Amino acid sequence: MIIVGELINSTRKKIKEAMEKNDSEYIRNLAIKQDEAGADFIDVNAGAFVYDEIEKLAWAINEIQDVTKKPLAIDSPRVEAMAMGLKLHKNGKPMINSITKESERWKQVFPLAVETPALVLGLCIDDNGIPDEADDRVKIADHIINDLVKGGKNIQDIAIDPLTTPLSVNTTYGMTVINTIKGVKKNFPDVKLITGLSNISYGLPSRKQVNRAFMVSCMVNGLDGALIDPLDSVMMSIIFAAEAILNKDPYCGNFLKAYRKGLVVKE
Amino acid sequence: MIIVGELINSTRKKIKEAMEKNDSEYIRNLAIKQDEAGADFIDVNAGAFVYDEIEKLAWAINEIQDVTKKPLAIDSPRVEAMAMGLKLHKNGKPMINSITKESERWKQVFPLAVETPALVLGLCIDDNGIPDEADDRVKIADHIINDLVKGGKNIQDIAIDPLTTPLSVNTTYGMTVINTIKGVKKNFPDVKLITGLSNISYGLPSRKQVNRAFMVSCMVNGLDGALIDPLDSVMMSIIFAAEAILNKDPYCGNFLKAYRKGLVVKE
Repeated sequence: MIIVGELINSTRKKIKEAMEKNDSEYIRNLAIKQDEAGADFIDVNAGAFVYDEIEKLAWAINEIQDVTKKPLAIDSPRVEAMAMGLKLHKNGKPMINSITKESERWKQVFPLAVETPALVLGLCIDDNGIPDEADDRVKIADHIINDLVKGGKNIQDIAIDPLTTPLSVNTTYGMTVINTIKGVKKNFPDVKLITGLSNISYGLPSRKQVNRAFMVSCMVNGLDGALIDPLDSVMMSIIFAAEAILNKDPYCGNFLKAYRKGLVVKE
Repeated sequence: MIIVGELINSTRKKIKEAMEKNDSEYIRNLAIKQDEAGADFIDVNAGAFVYDEIEKLAWAINEIQDVTKKPLAIDSPRVEAMAMGLKLHKNGKPMINSITKESERWKQVFPLAVETPALVLGLCIDDNGIPDEADDRVKIADHIINDLVKGGKNIQDIAIDPLTTPLSVNTTYGMTVINTIKGVKKNFPDVKLITGLSNISYGLPSRKQVNRAFMVSCMVNGLDGALIDPLDSVMMSIIFAAEAILNKDPYCGNFLKAYRKGLVVKE
C-alpha cells in the first residue's frame, strides 16, 4: 500500500496555527514522525490560507524537506501552488493532489499535469459534481485517464481517487467506492487507486472501526494507496495484516518487520 | 452476519473446569452474555471429555437452554453426541458443527445429517486432509452439498466451512479461504459460508488485528457467518460496520441500534 501521510494539512486547527506563526519545529516533527511511521508520501496543504497559500505552502515544503527524504504530495487545487511546489520539490517523485474534470480547473491544470513527471491524482468529479453511481464515477476516471495519456502522460504516473462520501448520507456509498475501484482497475490495470477513507464514517459513531473496515473492504477490491494518519498504529496494523491476508507479503515479511519496528500493535 | 458464539468450548481451560464441577452459574452466565452481545447461535462443545462427552454435553445444553432462547450449535464430530444434542434441543433451528467428507465419519453421520432439519456445517476436509488449494476445497464442498441434496436435505440448511489455516504456515492461506468462499458461493448461492477465523493469525503477533482484517476480507467475498467471541466488542463493531459498507444495512439501522445497545464501541 502507498501510504500518504495526511497530517500536515492546514484545515486542521493546530497545523494552521503552526503555519501562521512559522512554527518549524511542529511541522518538522510531524514530518519526521510520519516518515518513521511508514508514510511513502508526506502530504502538505496550506489551502486554509486564502491570500497567502503559496507562501505558506513553500515555507512548509522547505521545512519538511529539511527533515525527510520522502517525496511530498502537493495538496492544492490551484495550478500556481502545484507549479511552485513541483519547482521546490527535491526528493524522488512527488504527487499532485489533486486534479478534477471540472472544465475550468481542467483547462488550467492539464498542461502542468502532462508535463510534470509527478504522480497525478485525479478525482472522480466533473461539472455535475460527484456522481452517486459507480458507473458514472468510472466514466469520469476514463475521461481523465484517456485525456492525460493522449497528452503524453505515462499511465503509471496517473492515480484516481474514487472519492469517499459518507454512509450516513447514503448507505450505497460504500459500494459506490468499491465498485468504482473495481471498474477503474478493470479498464486500466496500471492506474493507481488512492483515496482518503475517513469521510465514509462522517456522522456515524465508532468512526475508527468504520474506517478500518472500509480500508480492508477497499484493499480487497484493489485499492493501491490511502491518505491516512500513519501515526494511527492500529490502522497501520490492519493494513499490514490485510496485505498478508491478500498474499501480497510473502512469509509475512513486511508485517513482521513492521512489528519489530513497533509499527504494528501488540494486540 | 450469522454470529456463532464460540465461548462455551471445553478446549478452553475455564470451560473444562466449569463442566468438570458442573458449575451452572459459569456456563449460564456465558450463555446469557453471548446472547445479549448478539450471538445468533450459542456453540456448545464438550469434546475435551473423552469418556463422558455425551453426559457433559447434555448437561451443558440443558443449562444453556434454561437461560437463553437462542438456538445452539451442537459442536462435536461424534454422531451419538449430535443425535443426543438434537433430541434435547428446544428453541429454533439448531446447527450441527460439524461434518466432513472423511469416509468413515461421512458414513456414520450422513443419515442423521439429511434427516435432521438442523443447519449442517460441512468442513472442506476429506481422507486426504485439508487441501492447500481453493479449487480442491471447493470440490470437497461440492461433494458434501451434492450428496446431502441427493439425500433430501434442503440446500438452505447446508453450510460450508472453508477452513481457516494459519498465514504463518503459508502466506497463500488467506486467499485460499477467500477463493473457497467465492467458489462455493458461485456454485451454490443458497449455501451459507461459515467459518472460525482466528486460526488465520496463529503464530503471528497482533492477532486481533489480523483476525479483524481477515473478517472483513471474508465478508467482502461472501462470508455469511463466523464462529467468534461475541464479547469482543471491537470485532462486533467491525462486523456491523462492514455490513453497512457492503450495503447490507439500510440507513445503517442495525449499526446504530447496536451502538445504542452498547454493542458497538465508541471509538
